[in-house]
This record gives sequence, structure tokens and C-alpha cells, in this order.
Amino acid sequence: MRIRIGILGYGNLGRGVEAAITQNPDTVLVAVFTRRAPDSIKLSTKNVPVLSIDSLLDFKNKIDVLILCGGSATDLPEMTPKFARHFNVVDSFDHHAQIPQHFAKVSEAATAGGKLALISAGWDPGLFSLARLYANAILPNGNSVTFWGPGVSQGHSDAVRRIPGVIDARQYTIPQETAIQAAKNGVGNTLTTREKHLRRCYVVAAEDADKALITKTIKEMPDYFAEYDTEVHFITAAQMQKDHSSLPHGGTVVHAGVTGLAQEHSQSISYTLQLASNPEFTANVLLASARAVAKMHQRGKTGTCSLFDVAPADLSLKSNTELISTLL
Amino acid sequence: MRIRIGILGYGNLGRGVEAAITQNPDTVLVAVFTRRAPDSIKLSTKNVPVLSIDSLLDFKNKIDVLILCGGSATDLPEMTPKFARHFNVVDSFDHHAQIPQHFAKVSEAATAGGKLALISAGWDPGLFSLARLYANAILPNGNSVTFWGPGVSQGHSDAVRRIPGVIDARQYTIPQETAIQAAKNGVGNTLTTREKHLRRCYVVAAEDADKALITKTIKEMPDYFAEYDTEVHFITAAQMQKDHSSLPHGGTVVHAGVTGLAQEHSQSISYTLQLASNPEFTANVLLASARAVAKMHQRGKTGTCSLFDVAPADLSLKSNTELISTLL
Repeated sequence: MRIRIGILGYGNLGRGVEAAITQNPDTVLVAVFTRRAPDSIKLSTKNVPVLSIDSLLDFKNKIDVLILCGGSATDLPEMTPKFARHFNVVDSFDHHAQIPQHFAKVSEAATAGGKLALISAGWDPGLFSLARLYANAILPNGNSVTFWGPGVSQGHSDAVRRIPGVIDARQYTIPQETAIQAAKNGVGNTLTTREKHLRRCYVVAAEDADKALITKTIKEMPDYFAEYDTEVHFITAAQMQKDHSSLPHGGTVVHAGVTGLAQEHSQSISYTLQLASNPEFTANVLLASARAVAKMHQRGKTGTCSLFDVAPADLSLKSNTELISTLL
Repeated sequence: MRIRIGILGYGNLGRGVEAAITQNPDTVLVAVFTRRAPDSIKLSTKNVPVLSIDSLLDFKNKIDVLILCGGSATDLPEMTPKFARHFNVVDSFDHHAQIPQHFAKVSEAATAGGKLALISAGWDPGLFSLARLYANAILPNGNSVTFWGPGVSQGHSDAVRRIPGVIDARQYTIPQETAIQAAKNGVGNTLTTREKHLRRCYVVAAEDADKALITKTIKEMPDYFAEYDTEVHFITAAQMQKDHSSLPHGGTVVHAGVTGLAQEHSQSISYTLQLASNPEFTANVLLASARAVAKMHQRGKTGTCSLFDVAPADLSLKSNTELISTLL
């Protein structure tokens, strides 16, 4: 009996989940739901309907887990509590500061409906959170530092695009190797924002634009760039298209701690992701999480959880016997 | 109410657990049990008794989790099933091929006694197993390769010491950077044993020993060295004492996979440990596992499990609320 998956939202993330389902034979895509005109969307999967979000509740008994592929700014804060009352759901809510509040709101809905919701799945929050938790549990006398990139930051790219004279822009966040090494050596907590990451911008400017002014505007932009060393490179629209159209990302969580009666032994744990496609990787985490939710709900678990509450074996397609003999 | 810990066996690992308890304020050491003469052992912790293994069963109601700090060759196959009937236990059984059999034997005893046993905790098996499982669950279309070192292999060091004319020896297993990079690039499954690791030996030879013969004997030793590129360096006893008396270890699990409808995006996950003290790090994993066992048994779980079955939050000293707000 395959796990019946519904997808809500068909952007990069929703398409990633659709692709992930083709790699996970214990899952099957039932339908994609959208706020757009369903006719305007063509899936890659044959014989699966695209339906209006308004018909979602008709699928209450036809979907085991609904994967919410909306954005964290406005979609998920509303969608996840709304649908957690009627479906087991998984989301990738990633506004770290607002997670406790989101968790509480979703909990209330899921508990009332007897459903299970798993929030904030992805890689940060998600796998990076797990790396931090395991490392902290094992080396409590230590510090974790998280580095992001090399990868495209959509928020920073958008901020550059809003500058007058800028036609297109891509911003790469680049972790500094020296800072990663410092974190492994146990002095990560002394690093400044500037020491940890470099920001590199590729900009297509209008022909008559003042490039010096654009550069200055970027480098001095508060919150986004002022605290960082920032490089600005002007390129052509053709170069942008050729070299910067994918969405790579990744990063490293470094935890360094000490053990021994005299705290005399340094120990470090590092977890690194190198992702050619950020949304597809996130989608794969969402689908593995959906598998765990289906298993846990079948065992009677309801309410809200995160990956912190999921026994790793529940994420896997493999049986416990196979896991013990091949991966342990 | 602190978690009451008993330690069985006071070698490097037992001493590591004793040190780990000083870093984890929710745990307390009740007693150390030994097969040696208790009087011959002096603990670092004040006011904790060292007792004969024969008195262990008198502590059935005074210990929440017994941490078994014996070796995998002969101690644990006997000890873990024996004591899992009477105590919640944690061990670091690390003979990969024999884990399924060990799991089954321990299960029978723990289930019969209404206790919970967690086996094969440590870093491999243990944290590396978790890295392999998470990576496989998220990138099922991929391959994991495990690299060990740089670090001291006790088994290989012992094998060199048994050669006539060798007074002392230390063998370092060293992963090849080029091979780690190949694994990240998704071609790890084509690597040979020789390409993955180098073996470096430091040898103190007797004055009249035939060094050329010792070198040849090491390099041609089947199972241990013949399949590898091996370096042999002769040093003095003083150099050995000065430069090679600690037990560093570590390694990297690399998983590379592809996502996308046309498998067009390469994604890689790497998990690296750099350990100044192998036994102390393993001990810290054992203690965090003991915490999880105490929590899970209190919720009614019995039988046998591995870290695959433990929700990460159960390993942590922090409350769920704190975990969500600080690490998620």
C-alpha cells in the first residue's frame, strides 16, 4: 500500500516533490492543488489531476499526507494551521524566529483534527537543525556555528534588483574557509558576521546606469550588505542566463567541543551540504518527512512535531532489518 | 531527578563515561563495576564506589541505565544479553557483520526482563550510521562511502606489534583527499580499497632487528596491509612516547545523489568527525544514548533498539521548548 501524497502549490518546491516521488516507490502522487487556474498548469506526471485549492477537502480520505509547498512569508502561516485540521501535513516553514509561534498554532489545529503535522522540514531548518542537536547532545561543552553557501540567496538577489538601474541580479553567499577552520578549532564563537561570510553579486545594469553608484548602494545597504564584505561584478544578460540560472546552495554546520576531566581533548563534528538544486533537495527532505508522518500517524501519533521528534528509521524506505544489516 | 548511571568496565571507555557524566548535569554516577580487584581501581569521581561485577544485581533498583564498557570481541556478546535482562543497558558493539545476531540475542533478554537495550552506540556504528541513514532516506538515488581517519587503528597497531623484532608500533589510517572528493562528485562506488585509504606505521624496532624484513612483513600482511599503500617509519621509543601516545580518530561519510526528473542535479551530504580522543567521544555518545534509553523506558518502551529508533530530541539535555527555539 503506497503512501498517497497530495501537493499544494506548484512552484519550484512543488515540482521538486513531484520529481522526488519518482525516486521513492513507496509513495504515489494523488493530485496537485493550486490557487492558480488549474488549466494553466501541466504536470510532468501522467494521469494525475491538477485541481483548485477549493476542492482540497473533498480529498480528505484519499490523501495520507499533504505536502505544503508555499512560502514562509505569507502562505504557510495561514495554510498549515488551516489544513492540519483535515490532513496530515508537512511544511518547510523557515522563519526561525517565528517557529515557536507557528508550532503552537499548527499544534492546536492538528490535535483538534486528530492529525499529525511535521513543520520546518528542509535543510535549515531541517537537516542542519538535526546536525546542531546531535552535536550539542554529544558534546554539550561546545559551540555550533552555521555557515551558509556557496549558494544563491533569493532575498538578497531581490534586494539588489530593486536598485534603480539594475535589470537583473544574483547574489551568492560564500562562507569563508578560514572561518570554518576557526570554528573547527573551537573559536567559532569569536567570529564576526564579516569574518564568516562574503557576499558576491552579479549585476546586469541598464546601459546608461551609474555603475559606481549601484556598487555603493549595494555595499552600504543596511541589514543586507553593510555588515559584510561584498563584491559586485557587472555582467551581460547573456552571461547571467548562461552562468547563473540554476539555484545551487548548501553550507556547513560546525560544532567544536571538549571532553575529558580537564577538558583536554578537542573534538569536532561537521555537516556539509553541496546542493546543485536547493528546491529539489528541500523537496526530497519533505517527502522523506511525509513518509515518517504517515508511519507515525498510523501508530496513533497526533499533534505537531519537527524532525527532532522523528526516529530516523521512520524517514527511510528500507525495513528495520535491512537498515540494521546495511547501514548500521 | 537525575538519571542514575552504572558503568561496567573501567578501561579507556569507562573512564570516558565517567568524564562525560561531569559534563551532563542530569546524570549521576552510582557505581563502577569491574572484573578486576575493586581495590586496584581508583576513580576520579569522589565518593563513588568501585565494586565487583558479582554485586551488580544488588543494584537492580538503584541504577536507571547500565553502560557496558567492554570490548566487542568477547565481552559484549556475553555481557549485553546477560545484563539486558536486569537493567536498561547501552553498549558500543561494533562488529558490523555480527550486529543482526547481537541485536536478536539482546532483544530476547531485554524483552523478557521488561528492559530497554540500545546497542551499537558510538560513532561507527553510531553517528556515521545515522549520517548514512539520513542521507539514504533523503537521496535514495545515491551512494554512501565511509572514510576512516586520520586516526589510530588499534587492531592494525597490534598486528604490527606481533612481528618479531618490533617493540612498539602505532598505525594511522589516513583517508585520501582525492577519494573523498571523488565520492562527493558521485563516483565513490568506483574507488578501490587502495584508493580510499593509506596506512602509515610508526615502528620502534629492537636494536638488532632487520628493518627491511619488518617493512616487507608489514606491507605484505594479508587482510591488514596487503590491499593498501602502506608507509613504514622507524622511530625511537622516546619519539613514540612524545608524538604518538594519544588516540585521535575520525572520518567522513560522503553521500552523493541526484535529483530531478532527469536525474540532472547532483547533491552531496558529508559528515566529518575530527576526534582528539576516540574513547572519550564514544563515551559521550554512550551517555547521550543512556539518557534517551531512560526517557524511552519511562514511556514504556522495552526490547532492543539502535540510534535509528531514537528520536533525536531524546538524546538531548534540553527541553523540547528550548530545542525548538534555539536549535531548530
